[in-house]
Amino acid sequence: MPEQTSLDPAVAARLRRNADGLVPAIVRRHDDGDVLMLAWMDDEALHRTLTTGRATYWSRSRRQHWVKGETSGNHQYVRSVALDCDGDTILLTVEQVGPACHTGAPTCFFDEIKLAS
Amino acid sequence: MPEQTSLDPAVAARLRRNADGLVPAIVRRHDDGDVLMLAWMDDEALHRTLTTGRATYWSRSRRQHWVKGETSGNHQYVRSVALDCDGDTILLTVEQVGPACHTGAPTCFFDEIKLAS
Repeated sequence: MPEQTSLDPAVAARLRRNADGLVPAIVRRHDDGDVLMLAWMDDEALHRTLTTGRATYWSRSRRQHWVKGETSGNHQYVRSVALDCDGDTILLTVEQVGPACHTGAPTCFFDEIKLAS
Repeated sequence: MPEQTSLDPAVAARLRRNADGLVPAIVRRHDDGDVLMLAWMDDEALHRTLTTGRATYWSRSRRQHWVKGETSGNHQYVRSVALDCDGDTILLTVEQVGPACHTGAPTCFFDEIKLAS
């Protein structure tokens, strides 16, 4: 389970987490609004994101926190954070340094699926 | 569990679903790119979305499919669909009729959280 956190209790009270204690975070670029990626946050990741201004997530595969860009250099400087109406999704607006995707693509959503209609 | 589906096997093979057989779908407006909401899709919801051009999701609370706007009239006509690099998130670009949020707000992300930094 994600660790103890010092996330503002007023914010924590608004979060609706999944069974693993996580909330999906949609990340978009501040200047053109393009959607870059989706990652996951526990309370501590959100706390660190809010207090450091650097997008910080919970890696479900590695089971640890990661600061975006820590190894790649492709940092995300957070401009604003919003919760949705249900408190179960976060929207980060960021200044993205370099490509957002680990493949080197500008965004993770480069794989278009054809509409049949 | 979500029901059997006739989703194109080539698309189904690219999906990475969670333990409930679901994939999060980020929804953005086609003209200004604003992020409207996040919902969940099983294979059948994606199949219906791709073949009808109407955004169709899986309701986790009601455990059934729902066509966005079916009761509210606030339809989403799908312009394009993309998968992310991992196949575990969908991005829908839609023409949104009326407000996207059930609260009547234009988008679900109206609840800003203050940055401490």
